[in-house]
Amino acid sequence: MTTLAIMALAEMHMSAQQALWGGSDTNSPEINEDRSVTFRLEAPDAREVKISGDWMPPEGWVPGSVALSKGEDGIWSHTSGVLEPELYGYSLTIDGVRTLDPNNPFASRDISTLTNLFIIGGGQADLYKVNDVPHGSVTRRWYDSPGNGMERRITIYTPPGYETSVESYPVLYLLHGAGGDEEAWISLGRAAQIMDNLIAGGKAEPMIVVMPNGNVIQDAAPGEGSMGYYKPQFMVPRTMDGTYEETFTDVMKFVEAGYRVKTDKSHRAIAGLSMGGFHALHISRYYPETFDYIGLFSAAILPNQNVTSKVYNDFDGTLRRQMENGYQLYWIGIGKTDFLYKNVVEYREKLDGMGMPYTYRESEGGHIWKNWRVYLSEFVPQLFH
Amino acid sequence: MTTLAIMALAEMHMSAQQALWGGSDTNSPEINEDRSVTFRLEAPDAREVKISGDWMPPEGWVPGSVALSKGEDGIWSHTSGVLEPELYGYSLTIDGVRTLDPNNPFASRDISTLTNLFIIGGGQADLYKVNDVPHGSVTRRWYDSPGNGMERRITIYTPPGYETSVESYPVLYLLHGAGGDEEAWISLGRAAQIMDNLIAGGKAEPMIVVMPNGNVIQDAAPGEGSMGYYKPQFMVPRTMDGTYEETFTDVMKFVEAGYRVKTDKSHRAIAGLSMGGFHALHISRYYPETFDYIGLFSAAILPNQNVTSKVYNDFDGTLRRQMENGYQLYWIGIGKTDFLYKNVVEYREKLDGMGMPYTYRESEGGHIWKNWRVYLSEFVPQLFH
Repeated sequence: MTTLAIMALAEMHMSAQQALWGGSDTNSPEINEDRSVTFRLEAPDAREVKISGDWMPPEGWVPGSVALSKGEDGIWSHTSGVLEPELYGYSLTIDGVRTLDPNNPFASRDISTLTNLFIIGGGQADLYKVNDVPHGSVTRRWYDSPGNGMERRITIYTPPGYETSVESYPVLYLLHGAGGDEEAWISLGRAAQIMDNLIAGGKAEPMIVVMPNGNVIQDAAPGEGSMGYYKPQFMVPRTMDGTYEETFTDVMKFVEAGYRVKTDKSHRAIAGLSMGGFHALHISRYYPETFDYIGLFSAAILPNQNVTSKVYNDFDGTLRRQMENGYQLYWIGIGKTDFLYKNVVEYREKLDGMGMPYTYRESEGGHIWKNWRVYLSEFVPQLFH
Repeated sequence: MTTLAIMALAEMHMSAQQALWGGSDTNSPEINEDRSVTFRLEAPDAREVKISGDWMPPEGWVPGSVALSKGEDGIWSHTSGVLEPELYGYSLTIDGVRTLDPNNPFASRDISTLTNLFIIGGGQADLYKVNDVPHGSVTRRWYDSPGNGMERRITIYTPPGYETSVESYPVLYLLHGAGGDEEAWISLGRAAQIMDNLIAGGKAEPMIVVMPNGNVIQDAAPGEGSMGYYKPQFMVPRTMDGTYEETFTDVMKFVEAGYRVKTDKSHRAIAGLSMGGFHALHISRYYPETFDYIGLFSAAILPNQNVTSKVYNDFDGTLRRQMENGYQLYWIGIGKTDFLYKNVVEYREKLDGMGMPYTYRESEGGHIWKNWRVYLSEFVPQLFH
């Protein structure tokens, strides 16, 4: 085939494609050499275009936003200040409607909304990039959960070389927050990239990372299961009533029967963010001889509430057994402006009162994915030595 | 924890979340009982809102679109006619800007644009849904391609029960089109759902489906590889110059070394759409004793062009060897309004002239995913008997 023929084919199809979906050639976002970022939108008929990004300081509960300026060519633009290396999310608001940047095809779903993404590499953010290192595999599977009465979807990271080795590996169970699912740590948490890069750098042991779905009434993430496409809710009923803790053995049985894993306490870790921190806390005390490594990332802890849920049955007794059985690491991380900060202070007081040891990490910022990616990349290097 | 405490937590976080990302409670799209669909957008300040969907008849190269009507509450809406069961895509245009429906978090990337999705179930479209049947696994892995000089990402579907069985399985190599990658058949093609449902219905043999990346200069899909996030192009250089055909043995070696597969011709199939049809055509004649089943879906065939690419070397001779070696099925599908229709007519004339047998399937419609999902679900039941 001549180059001309290829070009003719390409042009014919591209016109169709572009006409069909209105693609344009505007460059947005453009990451500049000084690490500022320029956003552009061709919208000659719009009256107001704003951008809201997670690098902007929030105004109370309301995120910061800034107006784009309209050029004479009908292209609106805004250039940010210099940004630190990080994975960033943003959205545009066009004449009052919150929407995406049509020139950026990369977006992640967080609960019920899509948000555009870009990465400014360097430092910590290099852990979030796909670098030229050996890559693990990421599998979406279904396992039988008799406790939940259904087949359930689960995401499994196996480290580079797993398929061709005969070794057995340690396991990290990594749990999502409210509104999340078995996709959250992969998409928003960059867990596969963080693991690949830490392992390649000799900073983490090769391990299997198991990312189950913590919403016990779901078989799978929204759009991936029998409920089809629907609008996800932040709180899914029954996710914090003890059912997940009771049925977590189904996940472990599946993993330990189906993968070459080490099945002793010293090779099992469990960690989670927000609601997943609640789950990690309670699962680790429900099965107090099971995990040597526990990570609570911005955990949703409400120890001083009036307890009626079965999940709190014998809270102190099981915690004490967990402490007496011993563990290598009980890691608690929270941001200074997290709305759960006070709850974590109270939980630490409870642990201090019991003499239960833990490692405490306080970061800047609030209840955000930026912190959870940092916590994961700090937690994982401490496992399985 | 009391229900009250959970609600307080939920409400606190939801307010933050909604404020942060501007989520709203508008219901869109709403699939009505009569299979019409209502789209809604809260946009009191917008002057014009239009919807463009792939169920609308195109106007030349320009897709059909229709204006939404503004209600007194500032909510724009439109109700479609009754739609046939199908997976549909659509976008909104707000004051001239092509964007997504902010109330629908489900979207797929096709080349460089995101498009919202919904499914109307029933009939053929039930194959595209996640039904209560055993599910296979979908793995994203990386394999070594010495021919391309890099590690490359690949998507592998293994059928239900693969992990716990000792059987060997047949393999279908399933190739994407220009602008696609190793994600295309999974996301836009619903390949995992189609396979699960056909296998569960006894209509297809359990098989492994291998979905490689046909753009030889990429290590992975845009956003999933070392190039990071960038705007994907429709035509990637060197994808149709013979390199992919020459290096396809790297894919097959990886699969046949790493999976329990049957490695004879009668248990190998190859199929692809558009550029992937071009690849399937040429790979199957490059290795004329390798595949018993060949599927060309809206294949990009340009046999009468002035040939300078090495991919056409000994075209007739290798085709003849392929014919003489024999095969079970050489399946050609094309839509009546496909811009490649005439090329397929010419290729069929060539095959007729050689006496090379094939099965021909002509459908309505053009160069669209709707057809490729149908072709896949018609092709797969004919394999490996």
